[in-house]
Amino acid sequence: MDDDALLAEQMAYYRAGAAEYDRPYAECEALQELLAAVDELPIAGDVLELACGTGQWTPRLAARARSVTAVDAAAEVLALARARTVSTTVQFFEADLFGWQPPRRYDTVFFAFWLSHVPLTRLPDFWNTVAAALAPGGKAIFVDDGPAAAAFEEVLANQPAPAALRRLDDGSQYRIVKVFRDAQALTDDLTRLGWSVHIRTMAGNFIGIAEPPTSPG
Amino acid sequence: MDDDALLAEQMAYYRAGAAEYDRPYAECEALQELLAAVDELPIAGDVLELACGTGQWTPRLAARARSVTAVDAAAEVLALARARTVSTTVQFFEADLFGWQPPRRYDTVFFAFWLSHVPLTRLPDFWNTVAAALAPGGKAIFVDDGPAAAAFEEVLANQPAPAALRRLDDGSQYRIVKVFRDAQALTDDLTRLGWSVHIRTMAGNFIGIAEPPTSPG
Repeated sequence: MDDDALLAEQMAYYRAGAAEYDRPYAECEALQELLAAVDELPIAGDVLELACGTGQWTPRLAARARSVTAVDAAAEVLALARARTVSTTVQFFEADLFGWQPPRRYDTVFFAFWLSHVPLTRLPDFWNTVAAALAPGGKAIFVDDGPAAAAFEEVLANQPAPAALRRLDDGSQYRIVKVFRDAQALTDDLTRLGWSVHIRTMAGNFIGIAEPPTSPG
Repeated sequence: MDDDALLAEQMAYYRAGAAEYDRPYAECEALQELLAAVDELPIAGDVLELACGTGQWTPRLAARARSVTAVDAAAEVLALARARTVSTTVQFFEADLFGWQPPRRYDTVFFAFWLSHVPLTRLPDFWNTVAAALAPGGKAIFVDDGPAAAAFEEVLANQPAPAALRRLDDGSQYRIVKVFRDAQALTDDLTRLGWSVHIRTMAGNFIGIAEPPTSPG
């Protein structure tokens, strides 16, 4: 068979997709920048990690913490996280974060790429849970996608919460919650709930540090 | 509207996709490793870069070369490469690499993620073109996906050359050539053509250094 048509189609792909070709490089650069920035944050003491997923961030927390308690709702990701994590100061456990109450208080509550999966209507409860998990002087530290990431999602209309469609390798499709808040909206959300918050945007992502209301609001 | 069903579907996604969740992290790590390794390679003198794409590798070559001549068939990617590259020692030009003859000889011929897009039947001609572009003592240096990358492609059967399906953000689909050769097969290919070759595999990718036959074969 002649491969001319295939080669022409290959060239058409690279011409039409020129603007998309850089994405893996750009995403990698943004991730590296984010990882480096997180390594500079005041993560210390006993750390609670919410929605730890496959434990990509857990070892970085463990390197700076006295202990890490890492929670996720999905047994499958926890299994991968446990396999990845060698530190003896890390404990994983399974819990659905919606409705969950922390069993004790921590110096740092950390969550990476989780806040954007919490429906807006559940944010007040979520932040109350975080506040209940923080020891006096403790801080919530979180990273997530900024609004620019919406361009790379299949955003869905008419859902009970802002949502996007995700596809797995086997072709299966799932709706997920995906709320894109910019730094100002997020600051306003938290300020309204009585938190002190500082949000830094960087390369499409943001890093937030927040302290809960000191007295019942 | 109640968001319980949406949240349940979100959790199902993270459970079903646990093994896929690490991919962006793993790919970024592999890319960082590759970039660091390329910075250690004997890239020097006047460099010819084939299939430069959007110029992700060009500035790294320019940092070590006397000059870089970067060629690609797609005007759209060249426009992005030109916009990215500030070095005065870099020149871009447009040419279809199939059938192209280099106008002069170079100390290094470099190509990243291009070899896997060349049909096997065209490899002898391709390597002859590379040999014709090399000055005495010159080296071809190339990086590409290893066979493990096939797992992340929609491989197509019954095509005139090994091929995969790629999708752009607008949903359009294109067939591209994608030949997955392992280090041994690639070494055998080149040795049969009279080249001396050393291939190093790393994190799903490989780096090759090859020297052409010293006399007409």
